[in-house]
Amino acid sequence: MSERYTLHEDPCSGNCYKIKLTAALLSTPLETKQYDILAGETRTEDFLENVNLNGRIPVLQIDGGGQSRFLPESNAVCWYLAHGSRLIPQDRLGQADMLRWMFFEQYNHEPNLATLRFWMRFVGEANLSDRQRAQIETKRSAGNDALRVMDEHLAGRDFLSGDSVSLADIALFPYTHLAEEGGFALRSFRHLRAWITRIEALPGFAPMA
Amino acid sequence: MSERYTLHEDPCSGNCYKIKLTAALLSTPLETKQYDILAGETRTEDFLENVNLNGRIPVLQIDGGGQSRFLPESNAVCWYLAHGSRLIPQDRLGQADMLRWMFFEQYNHEPNLATLRFWMRFVGEANLSDRQRAQIETKRSAGNDALRVMDEHLAGRDFLSGDSVSLADIALFPYTHLAEEGGFALRSFRHLRAWITRIEALPGFAPMA
Repeated sequence: MSERYTLHEDPCSGNCYKIKLTAALLSTPLETKQYDILAGETRTEDFLENVNLNGRIPVLQIDGGGQSRFLPESNAVCWYLAHGSRLIPQDRLGQADMLRWMFFEQYNHEPNLATLRFWMRFVGEANLSDRQRAQIETKRSAGNDALRVMDEHLAGRDFLSGDSVSLADIALFPYTHLAEEGGFALRSFRHLRAWITRIEALPGFAPMA
Repeated sequence: MSERYTLHEDPCSGNCYKIKLTAALLSTPLETKQYDILAGETRTEDFLENVNLNGRIPVLQIDGGGQSRFLPESNAVCWYLAHGSRLIPQDRLGQADMLRWMFFEQYNHEPNLATLRFWMRFVGEANLSDRQRAQIETKRSAGNDALRVMDEHLAGRDFLSGDSVSLADIALFPYTHLAEEGGFALRSFRHLRAWITRIEALPGFAPMA
């Protein structure tokens, strides 16, 4: 069955980049439709009703068999696109171990690294609310913990899960390689820096726009 | 291959309960080893070195073939235990849609509902740090948003993903049915309340200890 994919995205978002990187590594054609998060374009009545009730991007629109279906959540979209490919291990423990890093990404990594990048680079520190400002130190410390866990895990390993690149690496690459935009220092994480270089050297790698 | 499973857990944790509920619904034998999070028992050198570098539970210990392997992250453990079972849809979109709710759980739900429950019920509001106190309103509002998204999605549906119970429901059940311990009101979410009753009526359902 032939399907057509349209990614509803904001090009500034690392969560959207994950999906474009998955598609690039698999040579899967992917159209895109851009939204401006800061301008509230993902909170309109039309978006909430037809694209994602949760008011968030990325969302993958899957057209085929005469219907359109909409799949939210960046890591679930990567899973869908990579179905049956070398980016998902086929063995039971390998698959669970890869998912382990993808859940780690959503819980320990993204809320700290992506949020601080968004605040520092796009909102501007001077424009933060008191409530946001009160969270900076907590997010700084938790984000550094997540980077340290990855760095220690990567000592003696080329990739986060298994012996070759998988969705675990793709999920964690975007906001790790953008960490310095959020004020994190990658200097002291040498295994992480080597891993970033390794990902960037993959055949088919596409840089963030 | 026969494997033996030991769950490293804290019985107060909803993340650990997810795994016990998965095992109960599948009649999979599961031994448990208890830790007290508040007493720092998951931050000891031994735990960090041998069980989980990230200092967190739950972790599933898988014994078989003469070796022990350790799998962290509650949702990855549920995935491992439910491999090949009716709790994971076999079709490509069904699987991705189920994972969508499991990522939603880790990003939009758990950090708000589980954290407020932990602070209100176990730490005590009077003992919170200023930094924690400053996050209450943000977490209250984001937690209510997550409950609303689930409630609206469940209007006219019996389960979160597909036509039967899946890991999507199991991942979201624990902290939803405990929401009131964190100060959330389930009163106005009638589809959610019906879904909770539906989960509790499943054959093999095990309540939280």
